[in-house]
Amino acid sequence: MDSITDMPKGFKCAGIAAGIKPANVKDMALILSEGPATSAGVFTTNQVCAAPVKVCRAHLTHGIARAIIMNSGVANACTGAEGMALAKEMCVETAKAVGCLPEDIFVCSTGKIGPQLPLDKIVPGIAKLVETASPENIQETAEAMMTTDTRPKVSAVELKMAGQTVKIVGFAKGAGMIEPNMATMLSYITTDAAVEQPALQALLKKAVDKSFNRISVDGDQSTNDTVLALANGASGMEALKASSEDWPAFVEAFETVCFELAMMIVHDGEGADKFVTVNVINAASEEDADFAARSVANSMLNKTAWAGSYPDWGRIMDAVGYSRAKVVEELVDIFYDDTQAVSHGCRSGIPLEDLIKVVSKSDFAITINLHIGEGAATVYTCNCTEEYVRINY
Amino acid sequence: MDSITDMPKGFKCAGIAAGIKPANVKDMALILSEGPATSAGVFTTNQVCAAPVKVCRAHLTHGIARAIIMNSGVANACTGAEGMALAKEMCVETAKAVGCLPEDIFVCSTGKIGPQLPLDKIVPGIAKLVETASPENIQETAEAMMTTDTRPKVSAVELKMAGQTVKIVGFAKGAGMIEPNMATMLSYITTDAAVEQPALQALLKKAVDKSFNRISVDGDQSTNDTVLALANGASGMEALKASSEDWPAFVEAFETVCFELAMMIVHDGEGADKFVTVNVINAASEEDADFAARSVANSMLNKTAWAGSYPDWGRIMDAVGYSRAKVVEELVDIFYDDTQAVSHGCRSGIPLEDLIKVVSKSDFAITINLHIGEGAATVYTCNCTEEYVRINY
Repeated sequence: MDSITDMPKGFKCAGIAAGIKPANVKDMALILSEGPATSAGVFTTNQVCAAPVKVCRAHLTHGIARAIIMNSGVANACTGAEGMALAKEMCVETAKAVGCLPEDIFVCSTGKIGPQLPLDKIVPGIAKLVETASPENIQETAEAMMTTDTRPKVSAVELKMAGQTVKIVGFAKGAGMIEPNMATMLSYITTDAAVEQPALQALLKKAVDKSFNRISVDGDQSTNDTVLALANGASGMEALKASSEDWPAFVEAFETVCFELAMMIVHDGEGADKFVTVNVINAASEEDADFAARSVANSMLNKTAWAGSYPDWGRIMDAVGYSRAKVVEELVDIFYDDTQAVSHGCRSGIPLEDLIKVVSKSDFAITINLHIGEGAATVYTCNCTEEYVRINY
Repeated sequence: MDSITDMPKGFKCAGIAAGIKPANVKDMALILSEGPATSAGVFTTNQVCAAPVKVCRAHLTHGIARAIIMNSGVANACTGAEGMALAKEMCVETAKAVGCLPEDIFVCSTGKIGPQLPLDKIVPGIAKLVETASPENIQETAEAMMTTDTRPKVSAVELKMAGQTVKIVGFAKGAGMIEPNMATMLSYITTDAAVEQPALQALLKKAVDKSFNRISVDGDQSTNDTVLALANGASGMEALKASSEDWPAFVEAFETVCFELAMMIVHDGEGADKFVTVNVINAASEEDADFAARSVANSMLNKTAWAGSYPDWGRIMDAVGYSRAKVVEELVDIFYDDTQAVSHGCRSGIPLEDLIKVVSKSDFAITINLHIGEGAATVYTCNCTEEYVRINY
């Protein structure tokens, strides 16, 4: 990650306390492109989804955007027709202040499900955000997105393409360990590269699959999960498409930003103090590897065993066995980092202390070799401590 | 539940401390029928399954049994060929002491995955169990089955059929909230009724679906889950089949025993102090209702919200929305007992305090009306406290 000083060319941002949350805590943010940007989006697949997600989906068909307006504190989910009107109103007010169409605005909310947004605080908030937006307000913007996050999450990369410097700056807020309080995973990726819309949408989808979709959130998808990308071309370069010579380098940089943000979310899991990488190799298929890895990563019994620094490989065997992956018990090998715990489905004979050493670390990997085929998958997750239960009381 | 004094006619049982667990804690049990009993069994669907489960499956094809031998403390799972030999050896030793074929014996283990059984303690244990078995040892038997259970679980019913008194006595051990330490759900149902084997197997399968399969164990199936039924006909009655006049009364009694045992397991969930009934009604199908109810019951966010006595109906909306059930957000109503929290997918306007009153109780029901079809399902679950995490460290 390069050091971050300001936004990609042609982008401004802002984060302020508008009074939605108590105690003068930042709760509204704006990301603004001076000119039209091509846009892409990936949203929650939850059948119960928040009003702003519905508005974003509609506005995405437009393909062009100028700004993202967001609030934390209230999710605007399960709020009916009134909630839809409020989400649209946020776009209208932002469009007025920016000087564009409401369809050029994306809107996001995160926080408590149920209550209606306080429009009397939102409207002045929008005015102040547009007024104070600058290329340097990266920290404030990331802070305003936070709910149960303990720290703001930003990642940036600069790269040279055809003599031009291109920048990618991404923001995220976490979902704790498993969607705390409907806290929602939100992420915005901005770049001054010019990217054709279909290429940007395909790129975002693939990057999300390799990053935000590879972290353990217990299979829960919140009502508000949203990832948006804006590419405004202010670097002056020619528009990238999938056939461009520079495309692979751009893809790599874009995916790096998404991956770093996803890792920040896991590291900031609610109450978590261990980062665990779950690798499944030699599964019957990539899908099978994914089933097995998620089953282990999402298992409360494994998360609590890691919290207790106990190498309970039996719980891993169990979770692999009840996953949808094809498993032949007698073929399974399991490693904690490089230390083999299970050989051919039975304990390896390695002394328990050697395994305890690994699982006592704050960052370790579990590798499960199914010895069936060539499918592989990795899921990033964290442990579950008593603190998690306290946070979610 | 009738008061329990002794086993059904022709049955004996015993529970002893054989030294598998430390500190003279009971760890082996025997259930013995004096004559041959028709047998039925339902087992874990986990692809990784314990040696005794494999042996039980094979012996079930025999259709006739004399005894169940079991130990707690060691699960005999992921133990390879040596584990299989030990499970078979338990049957051979029991058969020798009882005077029957090894195929007449069911064998179960529950406890830690990985270690091999200490045969030097098991063999004398079997001898002692056969020696001390009596019709009155119900409490000792139930105690020897326990792992993280805090109390033994027994349920019994007596009924009159064609002038004969028939008795059903069932034993169970719990799986904590979500399969603690592979603790395994085990249950044995004994009766002195005479039941034809196919009818007994069908009855057991259906009773398990309505009881043990309706409690929330987080989708996790342990490597050892086993439910066995033995019907020895010692009451002297004619053999029951599905067309018998007395069949419905017997089914009802049998299902009552299974249901009571299942409820005891939920009530004794690890660290749990609230019992929650999740009803889904008017789903598109019974299967859909089941998907939605399990999604809510298994959600850690809901379990922790209940622990905090907070009526966070947004987490219920979320869990219903990401379940595999068809959901139309605008149609959903949610009740805490009789108090409506959600109307048409939005908050009902009922004061929060009224909902807090319900969710503060130690036993309450959540009812979710999807208003789509006629499918209904109920799942019984418990809350998740910090104590749960401590137990599973």
